[in-house]
Formats: sequence, C-alpha cells, structure tokens
Amino acid sequence: MERDFTSADHQFMARALQLAAQGLYTTDPNPRVGCVIVRYDQHREGRVVGEGFHVRAGEPHAEIHALNAAGTEAKGATAYVTLEPCSHTGRTGPCAVALADAQVERVVVAMVDPNPQVSGRGIKRLEAAGVQVDIGLLEQDARALNPGFISRMERKRPFVRLKMAMSLDGRTAMGSGESQWITGPESRCQVQRLRARSSAILSGVESVIMDDSRLTVRADQLSLDNAAAVCQRQPLRVILDSRLRLPLAAACLREPGRTLIITTDQHSEEKRRTLEAAGAEIQVFPADQQGRIALEDMLYWLAENEQVNELLVETGATLAGALLDANVVDELQLFVAPTLLGGEARPLFALPGMTRMADQKRLTIKEVRAVGGDWRITAELLAD
Amino acid sequence: MERDFTSADHQFMARALQLAAQGLYTTDPNPRVGCVIVRYDQHREGRVVGEGFHVRAGEPHAEIHALNAAGTEAKGATAYVTLEPCSHTGRTGPCAVALADAQVERVVVAMVDPNPQVSGRGIKRLEAAGVQVDIGLLEQDARALNPGFISRMERKRPFVRLKMAMSLDGRTAMGSGESQWITGPESRCQVQRLRARSSAILSGVESVIMDDSRLTVRADQLSLDNAAAVCQRQPLRVILDSRLRLPLAAACLREPGRTLIITTDQHSEEKRRTLEAAGAEIQVFPADQQGRIALEDMLYWLAENEQVNELLVETGATLAGALLDANVVDELQLFVAPTLLGGEARPLFALPGMTRMADQKRLTIKEVRAVGGDWRITAELLAD
Repeated sequence: MERDFTSADHQFMARALQLAAQGLYTTDPNPRVGCVIVRYDQHREGRVVGEGFHVRAGEPHAEIHALNAAGTEAKGATAYVTLEPCSHTGRTGPCAVALADAQVERVVVAMVDPNPQVSGRGIKRLEAAGVQVDIGLLEQDARALNPGFISRMERKRPFVRLKMAMSLDGRTAMGSGESQWITGPESRCQVQRLRARSSAILSGVESVIMDDSRLTVRADQLSLDNAAAVCQRQPLRVILDSRLRLPLAAACLREPGRTLIITTDQHSEEKRRTLEAAGAEIQVFPADQQGRIALEDMLYWLAENEQVNELLVETGATLAGALLDANVVDELQLFVAPTLLGGEARPLFALPGMTRMADQKRLTIKEVRAVGGDWRITAELLAD
Repeated sequence: MERDFTSADHQFMARALQLAAQGLYTTDPNPRVGCVIVRYDQHREGRVVGEGFHVRAGEPHAEIHALNAAGTEAKGATAYVTLEPCSHTGRTGPCAVALADAQVERVVVAMVDPNPQVSGRGIKRLEAAGVQVDIGLLEQDARALNPGFISRMERKRPFVRLKMAMSLDGRTAMGSGESQWITGPESRCQVQRLRARSSAILSGVESVIMDDSRLTVRADQLSLDNAAAVCQRQPLRVILDSRLRLPLAAACLREPGRTLIITTDQHSEEKRRTLEAAGAEIQVFPADQQGRIALEDMLYWLAENEQVNELLVETGATLAGALLDANVVDELQLFVAPTLLGGEARPLFALPGMTRMADQKRLTIKEVRAVGGDWRITAELLAD
C-alpha cells in the first residue's frame, strides 16, 4: 500500500539506494539493488542492524546480505529495499520468504518488480506472511538506478544510450575525415564508466574500421576502487556489419570478452567462417529494402537473447542518425569539447530525411556538467 | 600601492561593484562605476555613509553621488571605488579633487583607469593631496563589469560578443532556410539584455533581410525594473552591406535609434541617397580583393568614431565565420535549444578555410547555465 513515509524512512531508503549504486558496474544482467535493515526502539529511533547490496549475478541478493548481517536482530525490524524482493527460487531462495522467515515486521519497497510476469508477487508473499509492506518511497531514484533492467522487463528492449563527442559547433571530425581526440582525459574516463555500466556496446563497422576501436573497459582508465573487479565482465561488443567488412586484423577481435557481429544474408560465407575462426560470433538479421538491418528488431533480439539492459552506442553520424530516425534512442550523452571545427567539418548526426522544422527531434536536457575542460550534456529524447 | 586588504574592505568593494552593476544598461558609452563611502569607528567597525553609481553619461559620476550622500561625514572616511577616480574636468569636475576636497582619508580602487593616456593620474592627484590610495581589490570583478570600455581604451576596438542560437547538434535552421525561433522566451529575454548592455549591434545584410530584423531593445521583453529608462538609449544598429542591398522597407529603418550601414565603394550612389533619405547613415570602407569589408578596420573605426564599447553580433553563419576567422571575437554566447536539426541543416559557422584539425579554434567555456528549457554557454576564444 502506498502511504506517507517518515523522514527516517527517507533517510534509510536513501542509504539503500546508495548501497545499490555500489553494484553499478558489476550486477549486470541483474539489477542494482540495496537493502538496509533497521530496528526502531520505543522512541521510534532507528538503528541500522544490517546492510547489503547485490554485487554480481550468481551471488546473493541485497536482502540476504543484509539479513546475514542483522542475524537475530532482524526480528521485528524494518527492511528498506530498493526493488521488490523476489518471490522466485534462485540460487539463494526467494528473498520475500527469507525476510518473512527472519520475522521482519515491515518492508519498505522503493519500486515493484518491473517484470510484468512477477511484479507484485514478492509483496503478496510478504503480506501473506503478515509483514507490513509500504511501496513507492523514492521510486524515481530507484528507477534511475536501473534504466536498462527496467526497459528490458517493461519494453522487452534495452535502454539505448547514445554517446557522442563533439565540438561546440556540433562537429565530430574534419571534413577530410581527419580526426583526433577532441575531448580531454576526464571525458574519456567518463566514457569508460559508461561502457562499464553497460551490458553491451554497439558500433557500426565503418567507425570500428576507421578508429580500429577496441570497445573495451580498461581498468587503468576507470579511476574506480573496484576497477579490477569491474573489468572481469567486459560488455558485449556488438558491431553492425551488413556485408561482413570487419577486417580479421581488427583490434576488437583480440580483446577479452565477446564480439558479436550483426549482419544480413548479403555477407559472404567464407568471410563468416574466417571471422568466426578469429573469435567473432555472427548473427544474421533480415535486411530492409536498402540492405540495412532493422534496428528495432535487433534491439528486441539483444534483450531477449543477450539479456542486454543498457546498450551504449558509440558510433558515427550515419548509424547514430539512423537510430535517432528510428526513435529508439532513450538518452543522449554529449561530450562537448571547447573548440570550433567549422561548417565544413563532419556533422554529429546524418538525418537525411529531416528537411522541415516540423521534423526536428525535441529533447529535454537533464543535466549539464563540467568534465575537465569539456562539458557533458545528458538529454532525453522526447517521443515524437 | 597594492597591499593586503581586510575582509571589511572586500565587503564594501563588493557592495560598490553591486552598485556599479546597476548602471549596466544605461551608462554607455561611459563605464559602469560604483562608490561606497565608509566611516570606521575606533573599533575599526565600518558604517556606510554614502553610496552611488554612475547612471548615465552626462550625469554625475559615482563618487559625486556618494559624496553628496555622505555630506560632512566623508571627512576622514574611506571611499571604495570600482574604477580609478577621474582627474579630468568633465561636467562635474574631477572626482579625485572632489574626494580630496571632502577630506576622505583613504581611497580603495578596484582598477586603474584603462585609458593609457590618463591611467594613474587620478591616483597621483589623490596622493598629492595626502589621501592614502590602495589599488587592486577585486580587480577581476571590476574588469568584468566593463569589458567593452576597457577594450576600447586598451585595444582601441570594441569588445566583440558573438551571440548565436543553435540546436544541440550545432544547427541554426533547416537546409532549406526554413527557420523559426528554436530557443524559448527566456533565452529571448536574455538576448534583449545583451542588446541593452551593448553600444551597438552588428549584423550582415543577408540576415537582416532574411529575418527583417529590427535589432532594437524592447522594454516589454527585458523584464527589468528600469526597462523604460534602458530603452531611452537604443544601441547603434550596424549593418554590413557591401553593395547596399538593404531594402528601403526594412523594419530596422523605421525603429527608434540610428541605423549605420557599412558599405564599400561598390555601392550605387542612387541607392545610397534613397537609404539616407529613409534615415540610414552610410559609411564607406575600402574592400579587400574579394570585395569584402576589412573587419578589423571597421572595429577600430567603430571604437574611435562611435565610442562603441560592447559590440553584439547577431548574424548568420557567413559573417560569424568571417569574424572568427579574423580572430576578432572575444566572447561567444551560445543559446542552445533542446532539439536536433540533423546534418542537412544550416551550420553555426561557415569557416571554409578550416580543413585541418590544426586549424580548429579553441575556446574556454566560462559558464553554462539553464535558461528556461534552453542552455546558455558563455565561451572565450583563445588566442591562436
């Protein structure tokens, strides 16, 4: 039931959210979840008796860590959980049952499970065991922790985050193609973190060839205490390559982690075999009339078959424009370098169909902040 | 003499700066100046006995207002002035003499007069009269109040502020030329204020024709308490029009204030006469090999002949690019609308000569802030 929450409730849920965020780079494909267990005395003063967060898929959920820490003090306590406790029997048994068994008196849940198939079941299970359940505290913050997981559960496709680096006048490289890092090292560290939190990185073969991109997370560029642990999981590299033009010498094929090439039936079988021998995985998709891969279908496929929550797109103007045109970009991350490259330089987005003001793509700018000498703009695409 | 300043000194000079800023939209072509007169008691506690700021050219200077307010209490007091008191005999007599005559004991000056011909004379005059003078307190803030006046005095040309409105991908209008306000009303209010603080507004004839720009300050769009007083002075409208193509029906010719057309000897004498009859003033400049007006010469001319301190440029990609190319832009004011117009849309700057990364124009971003749904970026051009 939704109800008014006390300021202590807010404080402890905020702590649970903070804990959840500690799993930002490691829980994939699971959601980031935090839990705090609090005992209230007769003056309604709360004292934390257990805390936990989900670290990694295959390891215990946040509630189990917190219950283990609380031990017998969990009895009669209040548990703050950023996501509805599960009701299914995974590796550690349903968390809803564990909380009830520990005789927790009340569970405060920031958001219900976004999976429509199981949503509400954990809560029902708790209530059936006589536990008071209060829902919806700091829900927006809880949702912001897991945009990809929520998107995969609710929309059956990843949360698509498009990252671009541009000059102040919206250019990515000179017209000749001459290019170099225009953003500074602080921006590159931020990009590394965007990679690290993503299930997969998507790029077009053109960009991968041009930059010989590795598309990996590098521990030494993350500036994180748990960098080594983070790098144990490399995001899936997804390369759109309708005619299998990726060279066998491509750097990304020699990096740890998987490289998945999405192609069409226009590719050569021989090239397919050599790429597979070089370690790439190949997935064939139907092409549209222009010989291009249907982007939306690909997204559904990635969610279903590769459990992709957050998909980071790092690519050139053509694929970036096509994704915008297909209205599948959820968030734009623009790294803006303090320089001007002029009107002959390469545009940020190719949007050839956009000729009238009525076609413009409106956004909401959510955040603008300094990153070294650069600026980072986070924008949300508005529905057409 | 430069020396350490007390925290009281800082506080009173900050107040003087605040007062000076009240003249932001009205003192032109004079600088904005504020003055605070403070009596210190035996415990070194300061008490303000007079305040003033320069309101309008032809009216008393800040020091005179403050001395009038202080009356006999000025004797033995400390005066905080944001700019070196003048030593010349203008409409109100030299302020340095007025301060000495009032037996002010100490004068704290934020910055010396930027005019190399008179710089330091006011201070010498005070010191000769036995007044202690301390210089350089909050100098950077004082300089920031009068970028145009300082530029005209030190460099003999205006401070050039280039204002552009663009989409997040650096575009100003559709490729077809179809255009509309892409920024919101809050941004337009900010642009009105940029106009109001400027001595002159520069535009190319192409843009003036396309938008039938009025290039005026409108009281109802300023959102200022003194809007009516501000609009008594309209910035000089300067239109670059090498062949006198401005139509006689142009809206700007019917607005209050002056319209100055800068042209070359390629213009027709007849068109000149009709434009002059319609109220425009015409100034002929030598053209370069391409038939274009030498931009730097024009700037020197505007400073010398029209006392232009701050010049606001509101124009299209061609003239904006030419000014950047000539390295005469001091500040860029970008109003960024949360929308994408695509790679076929009009670029922010035409910089046809810019083909290599080595040609890029580096900037320092000084400020980024939200203006309604838009963002305003203030950047400084770095010297090549």
